[in-house]
Amino acid sequence: MRDDSELILGIDGGGSKCIAVLAAPGQGRIGTGVSGPANPLHGFDRALDSIRESAQLALADAGLKAAALRDAVAGVGLAGLNLPSVFRTMREWKSPFKRIHLAMDHEIACLGAHQGEDGAIIITGTGTCGYSRVNGQSVMLGAQGFPLGDKGSGAWTGLEATRAVFVANDGLGPATVLSDMIADRLNAEGLALVEAMTGWSPFDFAKLAPLVFSAAEQRDEVAVAILTEGGRYLSEMARALRRTNPPRMSIIGGLSNAMLPWLDPDVSTDMAPSIESPEMGAIYFAQLAETQSTPAECRPQLGL
Amino acid sequence: MRDDSELILGIDGGGSKCIAVLAAPGQGRIGTGVSGPANPLHGFDRALDSIRESAQLALADAGLKAAALRDAVAGVGLAGLNLPSVFRTMREWKSPFKRIHLAMDHEIACLGAHQGEDGAIIITGTGTCGYSRVNGQSVMLGAQGFPLGDKGSGAWTGLEATRAVFVANDGLGPATVLSDMIADRLNAEGLALVEAMTGWSPFDFAKLAPLVFSAAEQRDEVAVAILTEGGRYLSEMARALRRTNPPRMSIIGGLSNAMLPWLDPDVSTDMAPSIESPEMGAIYFAQLAETQSTPAECRPQLGL
Repeated sequence: MRDDSELILGIDGGGSKCIAVLAAPGQGRIGTGVSGPANPLHGFDRALDSIRESAQLALADAGLKAAALRDAVAGVGLAGLNLPSVFRTMREWKSPFKRIHLAMDHEIACLGAHQGEDGAIIITGTGTCGYSRVNGQSVMLGAQGFPLGDKGSGAWTGLEATRAVFVANDGLGPATVLSDMIADRLNAEGLALVEAMTGWSPFDFAKLAPLVFSAAEQRDEVAVAILTEGGRYLSEMARALRRTNPPRMSIIGGLSNAMLPWLDPDVSTDMAPSIESPEMGAIYFAQLAETQSTPAECRPQLGL
Repeated sequence: MRDDSELILGIDGGGSKCIAVLAAPGQGRIGTGVSGPANPLHGFDRALDSIRESAQLALADAGLKAAALRDAVAGVGLAGLNLPSVFRTMREWKSPFKRIHLAMDHEIACLGAHQGEDGAIIITGTGTCGYSRVNGQSVMLGAQGFPLGDKGSGAWTGLEATRAVFVANDGLGPATVLSDMIADRLNAEGLALVEAMTGWSPFDFAKLAPLVFSAAEQRDEVAVAILTEGGRYLSEMARALRRTNPPRMSIIGGLSNAMLPWLDPDVSTDMAPSIESPEMGAIYFAQLAETQSTPAECRPQLGL
C-alpha cells in the first residue's frame, strides 16, 4: 500500500542517457538528475549503475541525502524490457529503492505525453514504435529495432540513404546529392566509405538522417523516396493506433518535427502536442502501480 | 623470376572455409585441402591459420611433406582485401610460402570462371558483387557488404523478408506467407522473433533466402517484390559490366541458379557457364603474377 508522504522517482533509462525526476507529495518536481546510458540491451551493469546514479543526483538536487533512496518509490521505464530475458534479469535486481515499478520506455513516454491519461503515441527518434493505452488495454506496434524494423526512424533513414548512395555511386541506380553529402560528412569515398562505417551502431546511422531531410528540401528524388516510404509507414501506424480509439495522439522523439510533414495529412492534423516528458510519465506510472496495490516488484502491463 | 619446376598453390579463403589446390608443372592439380574460415575481416589469426592448414592438407593429399610449403608459390584470394587496413596487415604477413600473391576473392573467382582469360562475373551468395577484368583493366561493383549493400544476395534477401514480415505482422503492410514460414523456421513469433535474431550475421539472414524463393513460387507478392528488386539490381550490374566489353560473363555463387530467372532476359541469356573454381583461379592468378616478374609480396591489381 502506498504511503502518501512517500517520495516518488520517475526514471527514463535511454540508450544515451538516464534521466530521473523526484516528486514529493503536494510539491511536484523537486529534483532532477541525469547520468549515462541505461539501455539494458547494451549492458545490464551499466544500466543499473546509471539508474542508481540518476536517482542519487535527483535526490542531491533536491537537497536530500543519498540514504533517502530507500524511502523512495521508483517508476523506471527502460528500452528492451519487452524482451523476456531482459525483463527477467531486471525483475531479479535488488534495487536500492523502497519499491520499483518497471515499465517499457514507450509506456512512460505515452503517460508523459498525455499527462497520465489514456492516449496513443508514435515515437520516431533513433528507432520507431507506436503505442496506445486505452481503458487498461495496450497495443504496441513496431519496436523491432535496427536493422529489422524501425522504418521512418533516424537509423533506418540513415541506412537507406547509405544503401542508395552505394547503388548510385556504382551507377546502378538514380544519382543523388546524398553521395556528396555523405562523402563530405565522413571525409571518405568508395570503399573507404564502407570501411568508415564498419561497426556502426543505429545511433551512427541516425546521425545521417538530417542530411536526408536537407537533400529532400533540394527535391532530391532519392531522399524524397526514402522519407515518403518512412512517412507512409508511420501514417499506417497512426491509423492502426486510431482504431483503438485513443482520446489523444502525439508524435514524439528526436525526429518527430522533421517527420511530421511526411505523414499523410489525415494523420499529421490528428497529432496533439505532447504535454510532459517520459520521466514525468514514469512518475505517473509509479503512482498508477501503487494505487493498484501491486507487489513490490510488479510485472508491468506489457502490451504484447 | 619463376622457376618452371615450382609447385603452385591456389587458395580460396572464404568466410566459411578455405580451399587449397596444389598444381605441379605438366601435371595440373595433384592435391586438394580444405580447412576452416579464412575471412580476415572476421579474425586475422584464424584466417592465417586456415590458409596455412589448407595448404598443408593439399601437400599431404599429394603425398608431399609439409616442408615443401616453402618451395611453393601461392596465389591467395581473400575477401575484404580491398579494404586498405586488411591489405596492409596481409602484406606484412611472414607467409610460409616461397612467394605469395594476394588477390581479392572476386579476382580469383573471375579467373577461375573464365579459365584464366578475360571476362566478367556476378557473384551472388551470402553477398553480391560484380567484377570485370578486360585487357588489364578491372572494374568492381557492389561488394559493400551487409547491411550497407549486397542487394540481390542471400543476406539482403533474408533481411528484406524479415523486415516485410514484421511490417505485415503489425498489419501495417501487405500480408505474406513468409510470416508463417519464418515463424516456423525459428519456432518464434512476435518479439520472441526479434530476440531470436539478436546478433544475427549475414550468414544467418542468408539462410532465410530459400524461404523467399519458395514463397515466390507460391506467387506471394512480398516475396516476388523482393526478388524482383534484387534481380533488377543484378541486371543493372550486368549491363554496367557489359560496357567493359568482356569476352564472357558468368553468374556464380550459392544463389546464382536461384537468382538467374529473376534477371532481365537480355542479361540472363548472356550468361556463360563458369568453367573452373575460384581456387583454380588462384593458380592462374599466381601464374600471371609470376610471369609479370612481380615482387615476392606484390600489390594485387585493385579494381578501385
